[in-house]
Amino acid sequence: MIDLYTHNTPNGHKISICLEELNLPYTVKVVDVRQGEQFKDEFLALNPNAKVPVIIDHDIGQTVFESCAILLYLADKVGRLMPSSGKARWEAIQWLFFQAASIGPMLGQRAHFALVTSEKIPYAIERYTKETNRLYGVLERRLKEREYICDEYSIVDIAHWGWIYTAKRMGFSFDEFPNLIAWHDQIATRPAVAKGITVPAPLPM
Amino acid sequence: MIDLYTHNTPNGHKISICLEELNLPYTVKVVDVRQGEQFKDEFLALNPNAKVPVIIDHDIGQTVFESCAILLYLADKVGRLMPSSGKARWEAIQWLFFQAASIGPMLGQRAHFALVTSEKIPYAIERYTKETNRLYGVLERRLKEREYICDEYSIVDIAHWGWIYTAKRMGFSFDEFPNLIAWHDQIATRPAVAKGITVPAPLPM
Repeated sequence: MIDLYTHNTPNGHKISICLEELNLPYTVKVVDVRQGEQFKDEFLALNPNAKVPVIIDHDIGQTVFESCAILLYLADKVGRLMPSSGKARWEAIQWLFFQAASIGPMLGQRAHFALVTSEKIPYAIERYTKETNRLYGVLERRLKEREYICDEYSIVDIAHWGWIYTAKRMGFSFDEFPNLIAWHDQIATRPAVAKGITVPAPLPM
Repeated sequence: MIDLYTHNTPNGHKISICLEELNLPYTVKVVDVRQGEQFKDEFLALNPNAKVPVIIDHDIGQTVFESCAILLYLADKVGRLMPSSGKARWEAIQWLFFQAASIGPMLGQRAHFALVTSEKIPYAIERYTKETNRLYGVLERRLKEREYICDEYSIVDIAHWGWIYTAKRMGFSFDEFPNLIAWHDQIATRPAVAKGITVPAPLPM
């Protein structure tokens, strides 16, 4: 059995979606990040970086933090949603790091400056709007040639989808990215995805 | 033979250091990011995200972008600097994603607002100074218990070192992080590291 420590965040949803796709049974442990529960000692013992999600796989006593590391762990555990070897695996791994290093952090900064701060700083809003649009463009061109980011539906799609879904709900424009939105909307119809985003509870609009 | 497309950046140095550590022969292809060479069509064909580093491993015709994906590829190719399986491998992978998703992007933002912009924005400088210091703290506590970030010297150290080295040279303070600086200084004495940071050319101070 797997324990999933999570909250209703883009990175949390990646893992609930993946667990649903893989039909792995799991117990949800809510870490209310709005109440600062991620800074409690018992959570820091699982992830010293104080971020959800984290899993504990009690089958083998393995704890994993960082959402993209967890996705890779789960895919490899079951042997699905990720090429197991060869060129296709390296292609998937590089796009997984692209999500972790660029799409996630830059959308996070855009959300902060556009929606969270009371003081509106035009320079920062423009910087992160421009950069996330540039990143969307990378995906848009990629998805012109293919249905999924890699050859088949994989954890790479799940990793990106969690953030694009949230960006769309936050009202960020995708008008110039029709392939990206078509990809988003198609993946949204998957039953595991529809279920995954209700864990632990849907984000209030 | 491996082609390394790089410039004198923290992410570029990760790969030249790793190649030196692994004694892999490689040809340096300089991509002058200050001149915008990363946006040329021939480079975008290698990395649609327009970032160095990229490698082409001509032994098997594999192109890999994203510096942490390249580190993992090289370590696995040779079978060194990374646990090959089991719990130790997942522990290393999660810390590799921690570097990719937090240390790299947040130090990049701090450098931008503290050193690059002509307009100084106190809110942004404080935000990224505070966040990078928080992240240093995660590593500081980790390194209290051990010599390296994982059990042995690995690509996880190389990934982090590239950025801590640059942060130190940019004048960011490490006064409160003695374990982190001791780790940095010890790794700096490795011949492969000393060589790796001269590829393609040392950063002008």
